Amino acid sequence: MSYTLANLSELTATEAVGDPDCEIDRVDSLMQATEGAITFLADPKLKQHLKQTRASAVILKKEHLDSCPGNALVTENPSLVFAQVASLLNPVAAHEPGIHPTAVVSTSATLGEGCYIGPGSVIDDDCVIGNNAYIGPNCCLHAACVIGEDTRLNSQITLCEKTVLGKRVIIHPGVIIGSDGFGLASEGDKWFKIPQLGCVRIGDDVEIGANTTIDCGALGDTILEEGVKLDNQIQVAHNVRIGAHTVIAGCTGISGSTTIGKFCKIGGAAAIGGHLQIADHVTLGGLSRVGQSIEKAGTYVSGTPVQPYRKWLRSSVLFKKLGELADRINKLEEQNRSGES
Amino acid sequence: MSYTLANLSELTATEAVGDPDCEIDRVDSLMQATEGAITFLADPKLKQHLKQTRASAVILKKEHLDSCPGNALVTENPSLVFAQVASLLNPVAAHEPGIHPTAVVSTSATLGEGCYIGPGSVIDDDCVIGNNAYIGPNCCLHAACVIGEDTRLNSQITLCEKTVLGKRVIIHPGVIIGSDGFGLASEGDKWFKIPQLGCVRIGDDVEIGANTTIDCGALGDTILEEGVKLDNQIQVAHNVRIGAHTVIAGCTGISGSTTIGKFCKIGGAAAIGGHLQIADHVTLGGLSRVGQSIEKAGTYVSGTPVQPYRKWLRSSVLFKKLGELADRINKLEEQNRSGES
Amino acid sequence: MSYTLANLSELTATEAVGDPDCEIDRVDSLMQATEGAITFLADPKLKQHLKQTRASAVILKKEHLDSCPGNALVTENPSLVFAQVASLLNPVAAHEPGIHPTAVVSTSATLGEGCYIGPGSVIDDDCVIGNNAYIGPNCCLHAACVIGEDTRLNSQITLCEKTVLGKRVIIHPGVIIGSDGFGLASEGDKWFKIPQLGCVRIGDDVEIGANTTIDCGALGDTILEEGVKLDNQIQVAHNVRIGAHTVIAGCTGISGSTTIGKFCKIGGAAAIGGHLQIADHVTLGGLSRVGQSIEKAGTYVSGTPVQPYRKWLRSSVLFKKLGELADRINKLEEQNRSGES
Repeated sequence: MSYTLANLSELTATEAVGDPDCEIDRVDSLMQATEGAITFLADPKLKQHLKQTRASAVILKKEHLDSCPGNALVTENPSLVFAQVASLLNPVAAHEPGIHPTAVVSTSATLGEGCYIGPGSVIDDDCVIGNNAYIGPNCCLHAACVIGEDTRLNSQITLCEKTVLGKRVIIHPGVIIGSDGFGLASEGDKWFKIPQLGCVRIGDDVEIGANTTIDCGALGDTILEEGVKLDNQIQVAHNVRIGAHTVIAGCTGISGSTTIGKFCKIGGAAAIGGHLQIADHVTLGGLSRVGQSIEKAGTYVSGTPVQPYRKWLRSSVLFKKLGELADRINKLEEQNRSGES
Repeated sequence: MSYTLANLSELTATEAVGDPDCEIDRVDSLMQATEGAITFLADPKLKQHLKQTRASAVILKKEHLDSCPGNALVTENPSLVFAQVASLLNPVAAHEPGIHPTAVVSTSATLGEGCYIGPGSVIDDDCVIGNNAYIGPNCCLHAACVIGEDTRLNSQITLCEKTVLGKRVIIHPGVIIGSDGFGLASEGDKWFKIPQLGCVRIGDDVEIGANTTIDCGALGDTILEEGVKLDNQIQVAHNVRIGAHTVIAGCTGISGSTTIGKFCKIGGAAAIGGHLQIADHVTLGGLSRVGQSIEKAGTYVSGTPVQPYRKWLRSSVLFKKLGELADRINKLEEQNRSGES
Repeated sequence: MSYTLANLSELTATEAVGDPDCEIDRVDSLMQATEGAITFLADPKLKQHLKQTRASAVILKKEHLDSCPGNALVTENPSLVFAQVASLLNPVAAHEPGIHPTAVVSTSATLGEGCYIGPGSVIDDDCVIGNNAYIGPNCCLHAACVIGEDTRLNSQITLCEKTVLGKRVIIHPGVIIGSDGFGLASEGDKWFKIPQLGCVRIGDDVEIGANTTIDCGALGDTILEEGVKLDNQIQVAHNVRIGAHTVIAGCTGISGSTTIGKFCKIGGAAAIGGHLQIADHVTLGGLSRVGQSIEKAGTYVSGTPVQPYRKWLRSSVLFKKLGELADRINKLEEQNRSGES
């Protein structure tokens, strides 16, 4: 697959500077690129590398054009245009439609046109698979799942009963969707299971990273709105709702019945308590501990940074005595006030 | 499936108030319920919604009966009775016994009556599966596993060699039990594997959430006592012992050879060090960092709550200087004392 | 399998003390061992138990020999020799070569001599599997993976396209290698996928714990050098590089493009930010929050230890006000200085 600079300019609605007939057949990083590759400059700190790049063209902002010795595509958003160009040069291979002979597909399942069901995958009763969907090897779709058009499940994925996925959803390996939430009632010191009766509903254009888990609702459903992007090993508990176009980095956990707004940027490894409301446009730092609702957009962080062990030991002991330190400051202030009077 | 209020009252040993012939066919939440549904009031803060509920009946405590305009089941434990009623109205469908033709079952495995082995599942040599057990699709039971009666493995679960599960155990998808613990011996700067020779033994009525991992013992076994409930994505290292009826929320990690008492409530996202003893009846907050044994029952927490980024930056820098702040307070106190004298 | 003390002494290059003909057929812990078992003393705190052990022999340091009433193997590194002896007494069963009839192996895949491919495993086009490799049940190797000699994949493992594993690598169940990294470009409030074009390359003698995930590189590769040991549920993002012989405990997450040095000891549950450099020989405590590069070898920790809930509540509120406390100390110092003058 190769394009001329002029082709790419037209396909990405960017301004081409330099030789329009220059042939581009791959993407690469600023420092690694060689002839035939196109690269990009998004981080202005890397500007000084422009001179040395051997790339055939660079995607960059107008303000960096002067520093670029060769061909360029000029845009306000180099990262986005790079993503577009990388997709053009590396199209996802169209799958051959068909059901692998080792797949087990219920006679009551409905498969759209152009679907692929991989080896060892199990499609249970009453599932409905949209046109052109791809189900890779060794997946398990329990009864009555609904999969939208052009949705892609990689391999080794379980969708529990009644899971609903939108269109163009991408699910990476090892993901579990719709498993029972952690719902328990106690009697004395023992615990009894509360049946988890809802399901998981996932909007269009959602992407879910490897080994992430999303529980079904207890009553009502767990919902990911359109355009949500989840990284690997995220835990989404029952009845969570994640607003449209929110992105969450790896290893974050979200407790039950919490609602996260739209356009948030979260994690990784954040821990968000249950029954909370997180506003739209909230950014949360890594390892954040969220125990209360966040009502205002903004950037929030918690935790303490690493320090050498012996210093940390003193800081952490004093953290436990912060109340005592505050009392001593109070007393000193009182002494000074009475000394002044 | 439907019951009259009188039926439900009898089956749950609760007092029915109102029309005993009222028909109930489903459960729902206080606000969503409509005619035919039963709901419950456990959180007194929601009492004001009682008036507006369209549910056919409400499960509640005697003290809230006056606020309830319609039918009721009266009990000291509405959550538990709700769980019971939800189970009655949504019974787990009995599985059809049998071995799917694509399952691979060793001739030396022993299967009890009424077992189901799903498509693509592999039951290795010398496994013993109890009566009425259910093994869903694409599970891997390595050699010599023992599964108790009525135990249920959902899908895509691996049990390594010699794993022992009790009766009525529920394992959700993606769980790995009995994989090697992280046992290494160093020589110079290199690491050598210490063979992990124990197994995992899990008691009756345990439930284990999606993608949780439980390692086998190094010498001796990793043990979960009866009634333990684990949420999703929990990591249990080699030779951990978890006491009966302890519940652990998602994303918690427990390091090797630690013993957790009975009736504890832990997590989520707690990190518990190795070779520790946690007493019975300990409650641990989310994201807790446990580096020492906890000898007394009670509630323990660590970490700091989120705050806006700029404020956090100052707090976190000062945390690293807490030792210096304490020294300055000491000095001020000394100055005041010498000033007084 | 059994050995005499003399045999073991020769095979491990240790000094045998006591009866050279003593028969040893298993390993066990100091307190549990009975006749026929060999045990070891690595932790000097357990020295007092030496007298009571019923083991047929103890692996120990010369300095503890006087406290040992029976047979011994003397070495400077009892843990390592214990690992060696445990391996001798518990050899990994050689697998029978062959392809299970339910495995699905592409005709373009190349399998070395002595390989085993388990039931339900899928080996896609152009994979190359080295001699004596073992692929357990229900694994998915996507196209063009390369597996070194004597490498062992347990069960339920996905390797995405072009994953490269070295020799003698051990992969535990549920591991996902080579899945897409979390690479997104934004336009306005929406996110677009950046194609992830690199792969994962893993060196010789690496071991990877259950349900760990390792993403492919965006441009260029994600790399684990030889001898790296990862515990369970670790998340390694795109373009991370982990130096040789580094060990990482469970539940740790490493963000994209971070380089971790050689011979590090990390975690568990540490959260390491993106685009950082961690020097060789760094040790990181559990739950550490690493937001900046670490340039010097040493031991680093962050976080605060658990304390009883009410005390923690005051400490955590004061942490958020640390800036204010510091201001008040400043003011007191100023008052004292002006009082002195």
